[in-house]
Amino acid sequence: MSENFYVVPISKHNDLIAAAYAHRGFDQEECEAAAKFSAYASWHGIRTHNAIKALHLDDHFGSKSEGCVPGARIEKRETGFAASQIWNANKKLGQATAYAAMDEAIAMADRYGIGQVSVDNAFHYLWGGGYVMEAAEKGYIAYTNCTAALAEVVPFMGKYPTLGTNPHSWGFPTSDAVGFPVVIDWATSVVAMGRVQQFQREGTALPPDAAVDSEGAMTTDPNQVAALTTFGKHKGYGLSVINEIMGAFIGGSLPTIRSRWGSVENEKHTPAFYFQVIHPDAVSGNAFSQGRSQAENVKSVLEDIVGHGNEQCLLPGELEARAAARSKQNDGLLFTEAELAAFNQVASECNQLGWDIESLVVAK
Amino acid sequence: MSENFYVVPISKHNDLIAAAYAHRGFDQEECEAAAKFSAYASWHGIRTHNAIKALHLDDHFGSKSEGCVPGARIEKRETGFAASQIWNANKKLGQATAYAAMDEAIAMADRYGIGQVSVDNAFHYLWGGGYVMEAAEKGYIAYTNCTAALAEVVPFMGKYPTLGTNPHSWGFPTSDAVGFPVVIDWATSVVAMGRVQQFQREGTALPPDAAVDSEGAMTTDPNQVAALTTFGKHKGYGLSVINEIMGAFIGGSLPTIRSRWGSVENEKHTPAFYFQVIHPDAVSGNAFSQGRSQAENVKSVLEDIVGHGNEQCLLPGELEARAAARSKQNDGLLFTEAELAAFNQVASECNQLGWDIESLVVAK
Repeated sequence: MSENFYVVPISKHNDLIAAAYAHRGFDQEECEAAAKFSAYASWHGIRTHNAIKALHLDDHFGSKSEGCVPGARIEKRETGFAASQIWNANKKLGQATAYAAMDEAIAMADRYGIGQVSVDNAFHYLWGGGYVMEAAEKGYIAYTNCTAALAEVVPFMGKYPTLGTNPHSWGFPTSDAVGFPVVIDWATSVVAMGRVQQFQREGTALPPDAAVDSEGAMTTDPNQVAALTTFGKHKGYGLSVINEIMGAFIGGSLPTIRSRWGSVENEKHTPAFYFQVIHPDAVSGNAFSQGRSQAENVKSVLEDIVGHGNEQCLLPGELEARAAARSKQNDGLLFTEAELAAFNQVASECNQLGWDIESLVVAK
Repeated sequence: MSENFYVVPISKHNDLIAAAYAHRGFDQEECEAAAKFSAYASWHGIRTHNAIKALHLDDHFGSKSEGCVPGARIEKRETGFAASQIWNANKKLGQATAYAAMDEAIAMADRYGIGQVSVDNAFHYLWGGGYVMEAAEKGYIAYTNCTAALAEVVPFMGKYPTLGTNPHSWGFPTSDAVGFPVVIDWATSVVAMGRVQQFQREGTALPPDAAVDSEGAMTTDPNQVAALTTFGKHKGYGLSVINEIMGAFIGGSLPTIRSRWGSVENEKHTPAFYFQVIHPDAVSGNAFSQGRSQAENVKSVLEDIVGHGNEQCLLPGELEARAAARSKQNDGLLFTEAELAAFNQVASECNQLGWDIESLVVAK
């Protein structure tokens, strides 16, 4: 396989992905959300959560399982709390749900300075960083967490996986300050289970402290891995517990049966989402040093962090911004030959024409 | 020195600490807040942030420096955002400021489901976990972060300290579920600088990946330490950047000059605080499996996490709950002989009688 990347125009990508979702019974709004979100991920170089991964998740946990219902309608529960909304997503496609929730949280932040949307009976939204990044590009501070599909991670010092890889995502409107939104976005496990499988295939050792065997002892042998560990010992463990507790307050059930349909009767198996948006004017003391504006002040602080000999350090979100710049330079989404083969498999499954690699330009 | 702990009645502790703060010019409300908060920390076994540490901080960064102004009045800035308040603390004592901010955030959460208070020109609030723990005991989900006094931490892959040890604290109202509030509370550095100094005195090696030398190379030699590192590599780095960015949006200036009074003219040197409270009813989908209540659902989820062979694992906040149980059993605060000596030094500085160790009961 070549290490070349090939340029796929966004419209071509979106037409195929929308067709693939339509073929699975999703409605037009859902197909557009799925296509738009995958394009946004690929534009920013997020190769772990592109359209191929999205459809793979739909195969295993979604509309081909019991986790996701095409055309599902969101029900909004009356809360009596003006800056809060609570939704029953009825297993609607995660990307469509997340876009809608972030829009509502933004509208509440415009009015109250802060707003939150909690979502029960959700289905995987793929890449939380994408939603907070887009909100940050619109000028807002945004946050989301969710309970990940499967319990694959042990609590700190534990031996049985009872926690999801439970990600957190924060986005900050720093485009005026540094040219791109600072986005902090990661799972609370050291590595993903997909990485363990990759190491198994390649016969290489895992990084230390990333996984345990069935007795709870740390192992770097990918064939001995029974479960993943949280990053930063008890600190990452605490961050993972946050998602489980928020999910439990919202309506999620036991982590060990999540996404395991049929494992226990009369129990919920769905993940939960939590979204929050803050208007930057609603936190501003408006008294910045040297008469700086808020954006100028943020710029000064960020430059101080990566100054003083730290110039080689990256700000969180900078890699994604570089990938976006390369996508923009090439006027399209960049995929490897192996990824193009996977897209052509998708095309064949939904009776679409694939992309002829000979007709695609090699990316600069 | 004996490893015994001695029991000091709360009233005795609070009288001394209030007198120490009064001696420094703080008003009655501030003295009471300082005493109450230190007692709360010691009650929960927080020996790193007890009254001795609080007064030590006041010596180095507070009323004996330029960082804290006794009797300062908080000014509230009109925001136009109903669920948001922005305060200029005018360097008021951190404990009094934080208590007041959390009360206001709770009042907004009662009305809007969520509320936030941002504080500019703040002074060290000691232990963020205490404020969120108390709010959680009152039934709320609470969060706070702040910019730590000094930049002692390098950005990921960096060599010059440009970040504070920037802590995050989350508290959850889980007393009905598991008997205590789950509290996640830590600095974003692997260790505190005080630990490095302790290792220097004891001549022992630091844990790996906790500190760098002046060239940015990892070192375990406490005498070679130029700066601390963030926990979990880029993940903890991102969490530390969050505090700096929030501080920058609120009104804080460059991290490298924070608390370094006189280092740069016409610049702010104060930290910033951020507080947020969520009403648990404002996130509840009210559709828990098996007809469980919200608290019963949270209990089931937490029991699932520390079940399945993970029974030896602790929930975040469990150690503090055990310390509180021991304090309750002894009906007072527990201090070592060395700590009692430090309290007697405090007493002598403010012309109070010290505590005669012979008159104190040894803790069970």
